[in-house]
Amino acid sequence: MHDVARRCFLTAGAGLAAALVLTSASRLAAQGALVSAGSADPKLIEDLVAANRILVEQGVLDGYGHVSVRHDRDASRYLMSRSIAPELVTVADVLEYDLDSVPVDPRGRTSYLERFIHGEIYKARPDVMAVVHSHSPSVIPFGATGIPLRPLYHMSAFLVGGAPVFDIRAASGGMTDMLVKTPVLGAALARTLGRAPVTLMRGHGAVVVGVALPQVVFRSVYTEVNAKLQAQAMALGGPVTYLDPDEARQAEASIAGTLGRPWELWRKKVLSR
Amino acid sequence: MHDVARRCFLTAGAGLAAALVLTSASRLAAQGALVSAGSADPKLIEDLVAANRILVEQGVLDGYGHVSVRHDRDASRYLMSRSIAPELVTVADVLEYDLDSVPVDPRGRTSYLERFIHGEIYKARPDVMAVVHSHSPSVIPFGATGIPLRPLYHMSAFLVGGAPVFDIRAASGGMTDMLVKTPVLGAALARTLGRAPVTLMRGHGAVVVGVALPQVVFRSVYTEVNAKLQAQAMALGGPVTYLDPDEARQAEASIAGTLGRPWELWRKKVLSR
Amino acid sequence: MHDVARRCFLTAGAGLAAALVLTSASRLAAQGALVSAGSADPKLIEDLVAANRILVEQGVLDGYGHVSVRHDRDASRYLMSRSIAPELVTVADVLEYDLDSVPVDPRGRTSYLERFIHGEIYKARPDVMAVVHSHSPSVIPFGATGIPLRPLYHMSAFLVGGAPVFDIRAASGGMTDMLVKTPVLGAALARTLGRAPVTLMRGHGAVVVGVALPQVVFRSVYTEVNAKLQAQAMALGGPVTYLDPDEARQAEASIAGTLGRPWELWRKKVLSR
Amino acid sequence: MHDVARRCFLTAGAGLAAALVLTSASRLAAQGALVSAGSADPKLIEDLVAANRILVEQGVLDGYGHVSVRHDRDASRYLMSRSIAPELVTVADVLEYDLDSVPVDPRGRTSYLERFIHGEIYKARPDVMAVVHSHSPSVIPFGATGIPLRPLYHMSAFLVGGAPVFDIRAASGGMTDMLVKTPVLGAALARTLGRAPVTLMRGHGAVVVGVALPQVVFRSVYTEVNAKLQAQAMALGGPVTYLDPDEARQAEASIAGTLGRPWELWRKKVLSR
Repeated sequence: MHDVARRCFLTAGAGLAAALVLTSASRLAAQGALVSAGSADPKLIEDLVAANRILVEQGVLDGYGHVSVRHDRDASRYLMSRSIAPELVTVADVLEYDLDSVPVDPRGRTSYLERFIHGEIYKARPDVMAVVHSHSPSVIPFGATGIPLRPLYHMSAFLVGGAPVFDIRAASGGMTDMLVKTPVLGAALARTLGRAPVTLMRGHGAVVVGVALPQVVFRSVYTEVNAKLQAQAMALGGPVTYLDPDEARQAEASIAGTLGRPWELWRKKVLSR
Repeated sequence: MHDVARRCFLTAGAGLAAALVLTSASRLAAQGALVSAGSADPKLIEDLVAANRILVEQGVLDGYGHVSVRHDRDASRYLMSRSIAPELVTVADVLEYDLDSVPVDPRGRTSYLERFIHGEIYKARPDVMAVVHSHSPSVIPFGATGIPLRPLYHMSAFLVGGAPVFDIRAASGGMTDMLVKTPVLGAALARTLGRAPVTLMRGHGAVVVGVALPQVVFRSVYTEVNAKLQAQAMALGGPVTYLDPDEARQAEASIAGTLGRPWELWRKKVLSR
Repeated sequence: MHDVARRCFLTAGAGLAAALVLTSASRLAAQGALVSAGSADPKLIEDLVAANRILVEQGVLDGYGHVSVRHDRDASRYLMSRSIAPELVTVADVLEYDLDSVPVDPRGRTSYLERFIHGEIYKARPDVMAVVHSHSPSVIPFGATGIPLRPLYHMSAFLVGGAPVFDIRAASGGMTDMLVKTPVLGAALARTLGRAPVTLMRGHGAVVVGVALPQVVFRSVYTEVNAKLQAQAMALGGPVTYLDPDEARQAEASIAGTLGRPWELWRKKVLSR
Repeated sequence: MHDVARRCFLTAGAGLAAALVLTSASRLAAQGALVSAGSADPKLIEDLVAANRILVEQGVLDGYGHVSVRHDRDASRYLMSRSIAPELVTVADVLEYDLDSVPVDPRGRTSYLERFIHGEIYKARPDVMAVVHSHSPSVIPFGATGIPLRPLYHMSAFLVGGAPVFDIRAASGGMTDMLVKTPVLGAALARTLGRAPVTLMRGHGAVVVGVALPQVVFRSVYTEVNAKLQAQAMALGGPVTYLDPDEARQAEASIAGTLGRPWELWRKKVLSR
């Protein structure tokens, strides 16, 4: 009951979210408390902890941002830390959420206000198994200017289709606090994301998705790097040659087979501390 | 008596400050030595030590700059380290000052030349509980060009009303050594600050204020980040969309509830060393 | 046999490579397994390990990239790590390759997909004793815009003749996955490199060569630094004075005698961990 | 005799230096070996070691560059490390030089090729007690474009008179290897420096002088910072307000009294390792 009450409170200011919340709340009321999908693979949880710390070490996350992974035993659940700085996340901080982003067994632990980014993307994108929300610094200027992020080199080939910009002002039809803190806003963001791997959030940050934690971490790191290098290339003054779409598609496929290389390096470094 | 003499010496070169200093000195002479407001909350002092070190770690302070907090038992006193590099500050270095920036019990320890920034702001702004003076690097170019700092993303929403630029040349009516080392100059800076959270200092740095140490540290960090990212956004060449004033006000209110997250991370890291 | 099969598989998609592969495969078939040229100097292998770690520490390599050195006992062999992140390379990871980039005794260990960069350069350039392939970040924008890297200061005097840009699209006559993963592409890159010390790879990175590991590491570091500083100099807006060709040639000769200074520093730091 | 021979060899390519070298060599021949001015203050030598390491930590020096201090017992001698990377310098590496930059007792240890920068400045500037030669990265673009370094804020007020650019091509009347490796070139650089605290070296780096090690280190650090911030200010696009000459002179005088603060911090950090 606590969860339901809290959730209603959180969404109280967003009238648009009412229908969805009521549906979800009703379901909860009918079912009683959420039942866990069961223990996730300990390796998956450890990877989730590692992903949080790696993204801090790589400069993608600071004291804010969050990473989630879909539950390995139930596609209608996802795993994410309670609301703490990503650098501090441990196995004990990981909570289970349903796709309405209701925590299964919070035991008083608070949740990230913007967890709806994760739940609504998992609903809309069955192919997505992991989600990162960040304030990736080099990406912020692109979101604020609308200048398209484009793949400058093979490591960021996944940007070939562009990274659509989610403007919460358009999505909500008015002024907000910039936070995606309702299911309705999360669903709007998921629509902007579409089939893309990355969406920029105007005046806020970015969301990156992937088929697994190593891929979503890789994409988050190289989205940041590409933004930095693209800005440098543009500043040099001449025309910039980006990857051709065909090159990018081929490169992405080839590089997919190498993601274990940086992942093992990064994982080893953060977990050995 | 030593303090009085020293203080008069420090302000001797600033004729404009004479009246205020005499008033203050007279009061001291009448009262004898300043009496302490009593021991501050040890947690507050530890937070002050942490704030110094956090701001070094975050690149806001280097070997210079200072952080103060209003005394928790007496609003007419504030706490600040003796004159040492902020990275070296320990609990034993923290001194108590009255709002004229006279140290209560210096025991031979020297004070920051520019402590008047703090005292005069605490006089002018009863809402302010903590003050940071820095040479925040990415902010310096904005102070030197007068190009307005504006909130590029929700983390720096507090910049919505702009960050006024304090030009000591205008305030003093002539050439100075750029240091706010008299009560008169401190009061002039406080007037430029007005109700704002941040004032830039032309050819010098910045002053950031807040209702508590976690907020003033947060604002100092994200003023630096915003300056860096705003410069990058401007360099991309297109029009930059800053937060709408209404968005910024809402975002600031929402983010106010999350400051504990980076604060606990930062505090833990610097105090565990 | 495993190696032969694997190699044929790797090059299967590159019809152009067929002739060379067949020749090489035939030779292998005739000879049976490759016979090692014998143990390399342990100091050389330790230097190779150090070179990998130094280039990570200096920001030239990240989780990708590779370094090789020609075998000290057989000019038709070279040494390079198996396919792992350069920061993790140890003595035990170093494999011996022939100049067709076939590993002598892989024992199940995988090889870098782009090892042909190394083998084909060693074939074409008898003077080259060490090769680095990187995604050196500040260099990427130059490769993508075609703006020539030029020596801004004496430390990068070796850039005097320019750094030709290898465009794999032109070399292959079509769209690729951007990887130099066949002997034919490696040979094309070696032709673009010509007698130069550095070639940029459009949309990819750079290749640097040298007469020994200390030199190739030095050149890799200062190619990155020069790219960064040249971009800054260009951004200042005035005409940039680069080294005169005669100055550069003289400077390169003089600096050649000092390479031991940074090399010993760097080597000591990475091997003491 | 070894030193004399070596010195003649070093300057053999610089015909212009012949007269000076012969004079110096003759004096040596007449005097026999140089006699030491005696042991320098151990604290001074420790400060010299600290200065080397501080400048690496602050990003002013990398594997190259050198720091010297005038001998405290003999103004015609100076102290500087033998030719090793500054990060590795220890007390045992410090050598004594006369003002012709001849080492007093090298015992086989090699000297920096460009030591004449130091000796010739000590000759020309009796007020100078410490000299730094660096490849300070943010400064290189200013030297290469001739865009004047100017004081953006009070910390770099010492730049008020400008930083003249030494162009070795003009000084030598032709093409060189860019190195100040003769007394004649050192003297030319000292003339370009004049009464200034800093001279930039086109295509090479910078030389900074001071009345003591803490000051020369402070100036080296803030020359680098100022260059970086000035470039950023110029990129913002508006007119930049630099310190007024009168402001700068006053600021420099005031800040002179605070140099101990960063110096003690920096010294403590590098010597505690």
